[in-house]
Amino acid sequence: MSDIFAVKALVFDVFGTVVDWRSSLIADFTKWSQIRGIKADWTALVDGWRAAYTASMDEVRKHPERGYIILDRLHRQSLEKLVAQFSIQGLTDADLDYLTRGWHRLHAWPDSVAGLARLKTKYIISPLSNGNVALLTNIAKFAGLPWDLILSAELFEHYKPDPETYLGAARLLCLPPEQVMMVAAHNSDLKAAQEWGLKTAFVARPTEYGPLQKRDSKADGDWDIVAKDFGGIADRMGC
Amino acid sequence: MSDIFAVKALVFDVFGTVVDWRSSLIADFTKWSQIRGIKADWTALVDGWRAAYTASMDEVRKHPERGYIILDRLHRQSLEKLVAQFSIQGLTDADLDYLTRGWHRLHAWPDSVAGLARLKTKYIISPLSNGNVALLTNIAKFAGLPWDLILSAELFEHYKPDPETYLGAARLLCLPPEQVMMVAAHNSDLKAAQEWGLKTAFVARPTEYGPLQKRDSKADGDWDIVAKDFGGIADRMGC
Repeated sequence: MSDIFAVKALVFDVFGTVVDWRSSLIADFTKWSQIRGIKADWTALVDGWRAAYTASMDEVRKHPERGYIILDRLHRQSLEKLVAQFSIQGLTDADLDYLTRGWHRLHAWPDSVAGLARLKTKYIISPLSNGNVALLTNIAKFAGLPWDLILSAELFEHYKPDPETYLGAARLLCLPPEQVMMVAAHNSDLKAAQEWGLKTAFVARPTEYGPLQKRDSKADGDWDIVAKDFGGIADRMGC
Repeated sequence: MSDIFAVKALVFDVFGTVVDWRSSLIADFTKWSQIRGIKADWTALVDGWRAAYTASMDEVRKHPERGYIILDRLHRQSLEKLVAQFSIQGLTDADLDYLTRGWHRLHAWPDSVAGLARLKTKYIISPLSNGNVALLTNIAKFAGLPWDLILSAELFEHYKPDPETYLGAARLLCLPPEQVMMVAAHNSDLKAAQEWGLKTAFVARPTEYGPLQKRDSKADGDWDIVAKDFGGIADRMGC
C-alpha cells in the first residue's frame, strides 16, 4: 500500500471492469436473432468469442510486420472463424457487421456510471482499454460513461499488458506514472500497471464470465485499493 | 454546400473557436500579478505569445529530426523569449510554469457549452486542436466542455493544418472524412479540412484577437455551415 493522494488521473479497464460485455452481448444477439430468424447458441458464441481475444492480440504482437490491427477488426476475424466452427447458417456480411458492432452496445455494471461521475469531480477519468478509440467512444455514448478523454491501446499501437500502454497513458496525461491509477477487475492488468509504476485499484466483478467464473474472484496482489464497486473506489479517493 | 446529414462526428478547433484565450489569459495574469507583485504589460505579452504560435509550430515541421514537441513546451519556450524581450523582472521557474499553465485555464465563449451539449445528444463531439492531450483535457475540465473524447495534434505528431491531423481524426473515429465536420473560427483551418474531404462549419469570433481584430471576421470559403454561434450549428445539424 502506498500514497494514493498524489493521484491525478484514474484509467479504467473497460471490458468486464466498467461494462458487462457477456450479459449485454447475449441479450442483444438473442433478441436480434429472434427477429432476424437466425438460430445459434449465442451464449456459447459469446464465450468462444471472448476466449479468442488473447490469442488474437498475441498474433498482432508476433507479427509487427503486418502492422497494428484494431480490436474491431480482430473481433470480426474471430467471429468469422466461430461462425464456421459453430456452423451458424444464413448470416450475411451486414449481419456479421451487426454482431461485431455488438461490442459497441455494452451496458455498464449498475455502479459504474454513478461511481465515475463522483470520481470525475476530482480526477481525470479515462478508459485505458484494448478497445479501439471509436469502439470505446461508442460504448461511452451507449452506456452513458462520462469520460474526460479516451485512452486506447490503438493510440500506442500496443495491446495491454505491453508497457507502452501504461507508460503511454501517463505520457499523454503529462503525469508521472505514480500519479495515474489503473482500475481493473483483472489482477494481471494491475500487475503490469504496478510494474510500470502506476497505482492500482481492484474491483471484483465475480459474474463477468458468467455464473461459473473462477478467475479474478478476488484481489491477489498488493493493490493500493481493493473495493467492492466504483462507489467504494470513490469513497477511498475522497470523492 | 453539400450533404451534411451523413455527418457522425463534429471536431472543433479550440483556441478562439471554443474558448476565449485572450481575455482569459489577460484577466488571469492581471489578477495573479497583483498578488504576486510582478509588473508587466500582460495584454502585450499575451498578444506577443499568440503571435509566436505559428512560427513555433513551423520550427517543429522544419526539424523532424528533433522529434515532435507538444504545445505546452512550445508555449514555455516562446514565453521565455518574450519575458527577456519585454524585460519582465522577478519571475521564478514556478512563475513561468504558472503562466504557461494559464493556457489550461481558459474560459469558453458564452454559447460554447450549451451548443456542445446539444450537439452531443446526436453526434460525437471532440476537439481537434494543436493543444496537447493534457492541455485540452485540463481546459475541458476547467471550462466544462462535454467532449466525448480528446483528439489532438499530439496523437498524430503533426500540427494543423498538416493533413495527418484531419485524416488521423477520421481514422481514429473509423469514419470516412465526409462523415466528420470540422468546426472553426478560422477560414484557413476549414480550407485544409475541406481539401482533405471533411465537412466544414464556420463560426465568427470577431473579438478573439481583441477589439481591433481584422482577420476571420467573416466566412471566406464555401463552407457547409456558416453560423453566428454554436447554437446556430446545433440548429442546422437538427439538434
